[in-house]
Amino acid sequence: MFTARFQAWVRARARELVPALRALHLSPNALTIVGLVVCAASAVLVSLGYLVAGGIVLFVASAFDILDGALARVMGKTHKYGAFLDSTIDRYAEAFTYIGLLYYFLFRVHATLEPMLVIVALTGSLLVSYVRARAQSLGFNVNGGWLARPERVVITVIGLIVAPLLVWALWILAVLTNVTVVQRIWLVWQQSRRTAAPDS
Amino acid sequence: MFTARFQAWVRARARELVPALRALHLSPNALTIVGLVVCAASAVLVSLGYLVAGGIVLFVASAFDILDGALARVMGKTHKYGAFLDSTIDRYAEAFTYIGLLYYFLFRVHATLEPMLVIVALTGSLLVSYVRARAQSLGFNVNGGWLARPERVVITVIGLIVAPLLVWALWILAVLTNVTVVQRIWLVWQQSRRTAAPDS
Repeated sequence: MFTARFQAWVRARARELVPALRALHLSPNALTIVGLVVCAASAVLVSLGYLVAGGIVLFVASAFDILDGALARVMGKTHKYGAFLDSTIDRYAEAFTYIGLLYYFLFRVHATLEPMLVIVALTGSLLVSYVRARAQSLGFNVNGGWLARPERVVITVIGLIVAPLLVWALWILAVLTNVTVVQRIWLVWQQSRRTAAPDS
Repeated sequence: MFTARFQAWVRARARELVPALRALHLSPNALTIVGLVVCAASAVLVSLGYLVAGGIVLFVASAFDILDGALARVMGKTHKYGAFLDSTIDRYAEAFTYIGLLYYFLFRVHATLEPMLVIVALTGSLLVSYVRARAQSLGFNVNGGWLARPERVVITVIGLIVAPLLVWALWILAVLTNVTVVQRIWLVWQQSRRTAAPDS
């Protein structure tokens, strides 16, 4: 969707911050961990019912997510382990928000439909990323689909900040993340037809 | 843990069934889909409160999971797309059980602690597999850790069939799946130290 243009814009802003980060001797892996901590703080705010504050902090946290990659690139430090750690931590960061939301719905609102949406959206969100990694591990290359990470963050932040939209955001995440998984399965299927040969 | 010996035993049994499956013209991918449907049936039983029946059906479903691989190997049909589809469907199969459990705890038992354990266990279970796929996509090779898929299935089945053990099973899954993720992150870190060279 708006992935490419949105990421380019944030990356340009991120690049301006890189000199300051280098002066602070912050490594890309350290920034990844800081991003996770900020995301955990956002999840705690959400779980306690401070949805707007949680949404704003989540927005800040996702900036860190883009900053660490930009810093790694500028510093020429794009190690494979850094990429691996960044991806894995991103998945936990995303799960934290959903876990915070589940707590909020169970203990603050005593809702029953929303928790089901939360778990389906969590499954879809994690599997969008899983499908890509598993495809890459087998030599395929999958990108795209409707809800990559930036779109998921924006939808979640809007849902948290604009209260009447929260249930709609969860519906969209629950349905469209899983549609994105199917889109990516389809893309891999097309690629495998093009290069069809048993690999055993 | 008992992965290797357990899988070898089930695979030996599976191999005996392969001639019958070939006679029925069932492809490995078809078996994968049948396994998912059986797993979905198990999740519906669990969600309605028939935990013992759900546990037994889940045990049958996980046999399909091993059968499709065995059939693919015997037929010489180990296509990359088959491996990709099998892994992805396995993740959904696993998520179905947790979604069924969440529904059960919300609508049948009106519990609040157990839903939190369910979402943390789901996150850990999916990320154990994610970490392996992401590591492989970057050229690392990660196996092991305490709770790979077979161990998770056995713990879940025991929890479903022996009612007083269900909460314990969820605690074990919630804690030890995430410990397994950390174990695998550590394994990748060790591998990256051995072959340390920037890849950009």
